[in-house]
Amino acid sequence: MAETDEGVQICDAAVTLAFSVLGKRWNGMIVATLGTEAASFAALRRSVSGISDTVLSDRLTELAQAGLVARTVETGPPVSVSYELTESGRGLLPILDQLGRWASANLGAAAH
Amino acid sequence: MAETDEGVQICDAAVTLAFSVLGKRWNGMIVATLGTEAASFAALRRSVSGISDTVLSDRLTELAQAGLVARTVETGPPVSVSYELTESGRGLLPILDQLGRWASANLGAAAH
Repeated sequence: MAETDEGVQICDAAVTLAFSVLGKRWNGMIVATLGTEAASFAALRRSVSGISDTVLSDRLTELAQAGLVARTVETGPPVSVSYELTESGRGLLPILDQLGRWASANLGAAAH
Repeated sequence: MAETDEGVQICDAAVTLAFSVLGKRWNGMIVATLGTEAASFAALRRSVSGISDTVLSDRLTELAQAGLVARTVETGPPVSVSYELTESGRGLLPILDQLGRWASANLGAAAH
């Protein structure tokens, strides 16, 4: 990040881009929950605690548009829809793991 | 993260904790913008493009409550208030850098 003469860093365009996706409630949690395996909508709904059907559906659509999640429809019967991370989405997993470790070490302690 | 018998991962409490702070618009960008130096409110306001005074003020208060940002008041005259990352907040910088690299490589390409 470039530094101004006041010592403030100019907000990095790449970080801004990252938070255009991750700075929205649930998105990081959905990516972390998907992990490396495909999951049905119902299974995701159960695993991402507290999310509603409508919001999960909206977020999956956005994550698919951003290229992080792929949606696969199996023409049944019964029809089944599954979601999994793309290669791009999987690239976030080790970073989310580090974020989780940071949160455990720092935010967890602050909450006590 | 624990895996269920359906192959879906249980959303990690630590990742959920991380996004209780970072899953809110601007917070990651404010931390990245502060970087390693103290900054005045006015300098931050100029560097975090598009944020309003009220929202920046609210976010700085939240980040201070979460222990990521320290606020220092110099009793002047003139009174000056500066903000800087705590050790906890600085711990996020290398992770935000990785997020930025991931976004440049993945979201940037998707936008073309």
